[in-house]
Amino acid sequence: MVNAIRLITSKRDGLALDREEIVGLIDAYTCGVVPDYQMSAFLMAAYLRGMNETETAALTESMLNSGATMGRQIDSKSRVDKHSTGGVGDKVSLIVAPTAAACGVCVPMITGRGLGHTGGTQDKLSAIPGFRTDLTTADCGSQLDRIGVVITAQTDEIAPADRRMYALRDVTVTVDFIPFIAASIMSKKLAEDIDGLVLDVKAGRGAFMATEDDARQLAKMLVSIGERFGTRTIAWMTRMDVPLGRAVGNWIEVVESVRCLQGDGESDVMEVSIRLAGEMIHLAGCATSAAQGRKMAQCAINSGTALQKFVEIVETQGGDARPLFQPPKMQAAAEVYAPASAQGYVSDIDALVVGLTACQMGVGRRVKEDEVDPMSGIILHKKPGEPVTGGCLLASLYTQHERQVRRFVAAIRNSYSFSASPPPWQPVIMDRLDRSGWLSSRIAS
Amino acid sequence: MVNAIRLITSKRDGLALDREEIVGLIDAYTCGVVPDYQMSAFLMAAYLRGMNETETAALTESMLNSGATMGRQIDSKSRVDKHSTGGVGDKVSLIVAPTAAACGVCVPMITGRGLGHTGGTQDKLSAIPGFRTDLTTADCGSQLDRIGVVITAQTDEIAPADRRMYALRDVTVTVDFIPFIAASIMSKKLAEDIDGLVLDVKAGRGAFMATEDDARQLAKMLVSIGERFGTRTIAWMTRMDVPLGRAVGNWIEVVESVRCLQGDGESDVMEVSIRLAGEMIHLAGCATSAAQGRKMAQCAINSGTALQKFVEIVETQGGDARPLFQPPKMQAAAEVYAPASAQGYVSDIDALVVGLTACQMGVGRRVKEDEVDPMSGIILHKKPGEPVTGGCLLASLYTQHERQVRRFVAAIRNSYSFSASPPPWQPVIMDRLDRSGWLSSRIAS
Repeated sequence: MVNAIRLITSKRDGLALDREEIVGLIDAYTCGVVPDYQMSAFLMAAYLRGMNETETAALTESMLNSGATMGRQIDSKSRVDKHSTGGVGDKVSLIVAPTAAACGVCVPMITGRGLGHTGGTQDKLSAIPGFRTDLTTADCGSQLDRIGVVITAQTDEIAPADRRMYALRDVTVTVDFIPFIAASIMSKKLAEDIDGLVLDVKAGRGAFMATEDDARQLAKMLVSIGERFGTRTIAWMTRMDVPLGRAVGNWIEVVESVRCLQGDGESDVMEVSIRLAGEMIHLAGCATSAAQGRKMAQCAINSGTALQKFVEIVETQGGDARPLFQPPKMQAAAEVYAPASAQGYVSDIDALVVGLTACQMGVGRRVKEDEVDPMSGIILHKKPGEPVTGGCLLASLYTQHERQVRRFVAAIRNSYSFSASPPPWQPVIMDRLDRSGWLSSRIAS
Repeated sequence: MVNAIRLITSKRDGLALDREEIVGLIDAYTCGVVPDYQMSAFLMAAYLRGMNETETAALTESMLNSGATMGRQIDSKSRVDKHSTGGVGDKVSLIVAPTAAACGVCVPMITGRGLGHTGGTQDKLSAIPGFRTDLTTADCGSQLDRIGVVITAQTDEIAPADRRMYALRDVTVTVDFIPFIAASIMSKKLAEDIDGLVLDVKAGRGAFMATEDDARQLAKMLVSIGERFGTRTIAWMTRMDVPLGRAVGNWIEVVESVRCLQGDGESDVMEVSIRLAGEMIHLAGCATSAAQGRKMAQCAINSGTALQKFVEIVETQGGDARPLFQPPKMQAAAEVYAPASAQGYVSDIDALVVGLTACQMGVGRRVKEDEVDPMSGIILHKKPGEPVTGGCLLASLYTQHERQVRRFVAAIRNSYSFSASPPPWQPVIMDRLDRSGWLSSRIAS
C-alpha cells in the first residue's frame, strides 16, 4: 500500500525517491487509489524540486507498463525508430522512415498529432487521401513483417497512464518540465519494443526547448532512460530557429518530403534526414558505422528505393500515392512580398511566428477538438542566406480563414529579417549524445 | 472569471499575486469552479515559492468572508480576544479569559479542539460536567451582553473555506507553512468581530514552530494581518520546550487553572497569563498601559473576581462548578519515579514527548474521529530546577489504556533529564511584537 503523504513530503522537501516509490505512486494513481489532488501536489513538488534520472526512468517504466506494447512476433530484424521533439516544417520522419526501411531497418513508428505551433507526422500523413493511421497492433505486426515499416497513430492501449498524467499536468501547469517530457516520450517509444532509438532533440525559438542547455538536458535524460531499458539510444541536437525546408503545413510537407526522397530536398532537411537515417541503419546493424549508414541512406535516395518504400507505406496503409507525383494545383489565399526597403539577403525567419501563424491558418489545433485543414500552410520561397530585392515574393499562404488573411500576411512578413550582406551560416546540426557521453558534431562526422 | 492556470503559473514561477487574484482564486475554489487538483497544485507551489503578507492577508480575507461572523449587536464594549498557537499544558486561555473579563474586557473567545500533541481549550472545558461549547451566534451575543465573556467552539458557519482548505492541505502535505497557518488562525479570529487580539506564539520543541525564527516569522505575519484588518494585534513569543504548569490533560488542566485563579499557580503559567491579560486589558482601553493592565489582572486574581468570572462562565454555559472546588479523588494508573542514579536537579522535561504521550493516553485524538478521555493526563510533580533524589516521584499518569501503561511510564521517565547542579533559568517570555516592530521583552516589561 503506497503512502502518498510520505512520498509527497519527500519530494516537497527535495529528496529523491527510489524506483519502487515512484512506481508504487504512479501505479496507485493509475488504478485510482491516489486521487488527482494528491498527484497534482506531487507533480508541482517534482516540478519545483526536480527529478533525477532514476526517478524519471521509474516514471517511464510505470507509464509504459500501464498499457500494451507493440509486441514482436516472428519479426527477427532489428527494430529502430526515430523521434523528434517537434519543430516547424519538420518533415524528417516522412523521409527517414522509408529511407532506413529501404536499407533494411525495421521501423515501427508510432507518431503523434501536431502540438501547439509544431506539426505532427500523423496529421501530415493523414493529408494523403485514404491514408490510415488507426492501425491495430496486429495490423502493425503484419505490416512490419511484410514491408518492414509502419507509421501509425498511438492507440488507447499504449501508455494510458501517460495520457492521464498529461491531462493533469495540462491543468496544473506542470507540462514544461524536462523529466516529465522525457518520461512521456520514452514511455510511448519503448512501447514499440524497439532495439534502438534515434532522437532529434530540437533547440531554438521554434522548439519546445528554447535554449541549448534545456535541449541538452532533455537529450541526456532521453538517452539515459533508453539505455536503462536496454534500448540503444542516440540523440542529435538540431537547431530550430528557422523553419526546416520550405513547406510548413500538412499536405504541402508531404509533397516536399517526396521531393526530398527524389533527391531534390533543401540542404537543412537533407542534412538532418541523412544523419538520423545513418544512425538508424547503423543501430540496426545494417551498417558497420554511422558514416556507412549515411552513405547507404544517400544511396537509397539516389537510387529511388527510399521513395519506392514511401509509396509502399502509403499504399499498404490505404493511401492514394498518385497525387504525390501529380500534386493538384493549389490557389494561394495570399502572397507575402518583401518590403520595398528589403535589399540584400534574408538574414532570418522566426520559426515560432511561422509556426503559430500556420497553426492559426489551419495547420494545427488551437484546442484539442479542432480539425486540421490538410491543405493549409505556408511555402517559404526565400530562406536565410538567399538574395532578395524590394517587392520580391517571400511566401505563399494557403488557408480557408480568408477574413484573417491580412493578419497572417503581416505576421509572416514580420517573421522575416533582412541584411545587406549574407548572414553568417548557422549549422542545423548542433551536437550528438550517446551513452558514452557527448561528442561534438564535428568529431562525430 | 478567474484564470486558475495563469495564477498557478505565476506562483509556480515565484511571482507574487495581488489581492484580487488571491481572492478570486479562493472564492472560485470555495464555490467549486476551481477543482481540488488545481488548488492542490497552487498550494504546493505557494508552499515552495512562498507567499508575502499581502497575499496572506488576501487569503485570510477570502476565508473570513466565506462564512458568517459573530456580529455585534448592542455590545459597545471593546472586544479583545487571545489566541495561542498551541502548546503542551497550555491552559492560559482558561485563566486570561475570565481575568480580562473581570477587568472589563469583552472576550468573545472561539476555541478549537486539541491538535496533534497539543491540547485544545474546547476539550478542556468540555471536561467540566454539563459545560456546553456548541453555542449559536445568538447565544454568544446574549452571553457577551450579560457577562462579557464567552468561550465556545467554532461553528460550521465560521470560515468554511478554511475548513475546506485545511482538509486539502492535510492530504497534500502543505499544512506546516507559515502563511497558511497565519491565514487559518486569523480568518477564524477576525470572525469574532474583535477590536484587539493578543497572540501567544509558542516556540520550541513542544510547539508547532520549533525554532525561534519560524515563530517570529509567524508572529510577524499574524500581527501584520490583524493590523491590515483594523484589529490592534500584539504577539507575545513564549517558550514551549517544557510543559507549561504541572498538569497536561483536560480535566486536570481545568483544576490547575482554578488553582491559578485562586492565586496558587505555577510561575510559568502565571507569568504568561498575566502578560497576556495585561495586554488585553490595555488593548480594550480598560487600562492606560499594559503594565497597568497587568496590575489589574493580578488584582482580579488576588481579589477573587477572576475566579468568580470563571464560575460565571461555567454556570452560564450549563456547567457544574461544584467539582471545580471539590475535585473527585482520582486513581493514578501509574506513577513515574526517578531512576536511582538521579541526584541533584531536574534539568529538563521534553514537552514534545510529554505531549505525544498524553495524546496517546487519551488527552488528544490520534485520528479526527477519536473521542478524548476527559480524565486522562499527566501530573508533573517535578519540574526543571526542582531537586530530586533517586526513586522520588516525578509524575502521575491517568489513563484508561492500561495495557500500554508501561510504555507511557518509560516515555515520561525518558522525557526527564537530570543534572548535579541547578540548570540555567530559561525565561518563558521570549519577545513581544506589535505593529511598531519588535521590542525586547526586557524593554517591554
